[in-house]
Amino acid sequence: MATLREDADKIIGAALEAALPDNAVKKALEGHSFSGGRVRLVAAGKAAWQMAKTASDLLGSRIEAGVVVTKYGHSMGSIANFDIWEAGHPVPDENSFRGAQAAIDLVKDLTAEDTVLFLVSGGGSALFEKTLVSGEELADITKQLLACGADIVEINTLRKRLSAVKGGKFAQICAPAQVYSIVLSDILGDPLDMIASGPAYPDSSTAADAKAIIAKYGLKMSEAALGLMEVETPKQLDNVTTKITGSVRQLCAAAKTACQKLGYEPVVLTDCLACEAREAGAFLGAIARTHAEADHSLAFIAGGETVVHLTGTGKGGRNQELALGAAQGIAGLSGAAVFSVGSDGTDGPTDAAGGYVDYTTASRLKEQGVDIFEVLKNNDAYHALQKVGGLVMTGPTGTNVNDVAVLLLKREI
Amino acid sequence: MATLREDADKIIGAALEAALPDNAVKKALEGHSFSGGRVRLVAAGKAAWQMAKTASDLLGSRIEAGVVVTKYGHSMGSIANFDIWEAGHPVPDENSFRGAQAAIDLVKDLTAEDTVLFLVSGGGSALFEKTLVSGEELADITKQLLACGADIVEINTLRKRLSAVKGGKFAQICAPAQVYSIVLSDILGDPLDMIASGPAYPDSSTAADAKAIIAKYGLKMSEAALGLMEVETPKQLDNVTTKITGSVRQLCAAAKTACQKLGYEPVVLTDCLACEAREAGAFLGAIARTHAEADHSLAFIAGGETVVHLTGTGKGGRNQELALGAAQGIAGLSGAAVFSVGSDGTDGPTDAAGGYVDYTTASRLKEQGVDIFEVLKNNDAYHALQKVGGLVMTGPTGTNVNDVAVLLLKREI
Repeated sequence: MATLREDADKIIGAALEAALPDNAVKKALEGHSFSGGRVRLVAAGKAAWQMAKTASDLLGSRIEAGVVVTKYGHSMGSIANFDIWEAGHPVPDENSFRGAQAAIDLVKDLTAEDTVLFLVSGGGSALFEKTLVSGEELADITKQLLACGADIVEINTLRKRLSAVKGGKFAQICAPAQVYSIVLSDILGDPLDMIASGPAYPDSSTAADAKAIIAKYGLKMSEAALGLMEVETPKQLDNVTTKITGSVRQLCAAAKTACQKLGYEPVVLTDCLACEAREAGAFLGAIARTHAEADHSLAFIAGGETVVHLTGTGKGGRNQELALGAAQGIAGLSGAAVFSVGSDGTDGPTDAAGGYVDYTTASRLKEQGVDIFEVLKNNDAYHALQKVGGLVMTGPTGTNVNDVAVLLLKREI
Repeated sequence: MATLREDADKIIGAALEAALPDNAVKKALEGHSFSGGRVRLVAAGKAAWQMAKTASDLLGSRIEAGVVVTKYGHSMGSIANFDIWEAGHPVPDENSFRGAQAAIDLVKDLTAEDTVLFLVSGGGSALFEKTLVSGEELADITKQLLACGADIVEINTLRKRLSAVKGGKFAQICAPAQVYSIVLSDILGDPLDMIASGPAYPDSSTAADAKAIIAKYGLKMSEAALGLMEVETPKQLDNVTTKITGSVRQLCAAAKTACQKLGYEPVVLTDCLACEAREAGAFLGAIARTHAEADHSLAFIAGGETVVHLTGTGKGGRNQELALGAAQGIAGLSGAAVFSVGSDGTDGPTDAAGGYVDYTTASRLKEQGVDIFEVLKNNDAYHALQKVGGLVMTGPTGTNVNDVAVLLLKREI
């Protein structure tokens, strides 16, 4: 019979693989049929190169031309005849503007028969931008917004109006062509108007909202910028079909399927966990204690992205802290394990993707003189887990769709 | 159709009622038949008076005599012909010793036909004690143990050996009579050797353990005390039947039944939650976001006792913080509510039993200029909840079997 750790590694492998940009794009393109016209590709974001490569591999010469804009160092070479740009992130630079302009030029004269295959991933806000005011004024307005304590919704309401592509405007440029938008979501809850600032998604904020924000904070801007605030963003986009893929939901769904295959009855608790990492671990530990005597194997899955408040100077990451935070709760519960991994394969500033603990971990740490409470206080989960073989190493995966944590309760081990 | 708050109040009422000492004792006595001999009652702990009163009301003259030892101010008058003592808690005093002695005198000459109905509740460790060393030496050894950082298991290992009643010894005094022990559990996981220090429960620690602890910390004690460490505590008690009742498990089970009656599909996540209160709330909020679109009403139940780390000077309690910690997560999710109550009816140093929030709470607080993050930072959940009708008021209930938190996701509201 497979060990708990072997089960964990299989589940981790299956979840991470499902979330890779390649598989995510493949899944989104499966069964999709393009209309008879031309297909042109625009890919923007940190995963743009991999997404474009997969689409090109699958569709070949069906894609007539393409523009790819990704972060510096993220291009792995040429793809077909595509125009590939590397640009600034998190602060947009000249290449962000040039790449976006190249994309606009590629899509602006299409017909209703044609399709823009638009591949969106995190980082697209900075990497794919055409500002309607000067770069200096954009920076100045952003600075004012941050200084006055405006929230992210308020900031985006204004920024969408200062951009030629954000807030659904890129899809308007594509019209009358159809836009098939494949979105690799890196934000919990998949808010489509937030991911890459929603270039192909209707904007729910209004010109009236924008003016109210300017009045609320007494923001100063040029007449030209004030004029832009009057222009309404698209509230409906009839030419866009959106497919969310490779999000934390898929990470959880893949973990669920893998758990089922291994004989666990899976329960997805949440796919938008956002609390303190170690406390999430303690919560899973408490669930374990109550369900430890079930007559069949159970798996509780919690996806999301927890947080860590630093109180020490050790080495670790949120996934390692979550796992270690569960160790005491599952101590001695035969067949119980908790693991948590980041889908990018790098948890915090470490070379581990996450952490794994089981019912023996707490006592093995104690034997080695390691006090879990002190370790967490010093944010040093990495070294503690290292001592007991509790690090999960995958290497960088090339995607980032948050994390997944799993509690396994295995019978007959 | 009932409102969310009406549902919440019904669930809270049903859960708290099930956990009351009266109902808990009633349930434990239902269907129990005593053998033909005499029945004598001994009740020790903070709920001793209520437990004894219920037993007397139910069994009447079948109980020949009784000794009740409870905390000062906790006796509500005479019960039958029982001998009622009020004693010191958390530090035992002369009355604790006198009460325990009266109980010993009551049970020491019984026969195998007779039964001791032993009613145990939290606080029994201090309220029911007969020390085998002087009170001064007991205090001195306890002080040494605390100073050297011994854990609670180590402390109890030694204290059981310095007592004539702890660690199963009271049950030995009752022998050959049968002991029917009804335990109102106030400790998560119902560790029977910990509740009231287990006067009628076999002790798992050994004389060798005790000596190792003395050596480990270099403890100083009299020859008499050292001699006591050599005496083995009972590892098996053939004359005892134990019934755990009124624990957090029953609190959760009653909440579950109440949820079912109201049309919710209930899921008991845990009955031993012990993490930071606000983070438990955030976890429940994350569960809500993922399950908000289920096609039927759901209830997630988490019993236990969370903790609060004070960072401010406001007013509140762990249940109020848990509820408020969920407000942001369930904001805008039509039909979602989270509430948490302490079974004693007093949450922290407040007159509220706990807190209630629903999908409208966050926006209503914002309208009133209340920032949830700041409120939690100042541990001031009471005043924030008060502004939006979010306090749960029950008055003191007379029991303490931890807390229960519930997430409701109601369809068709």
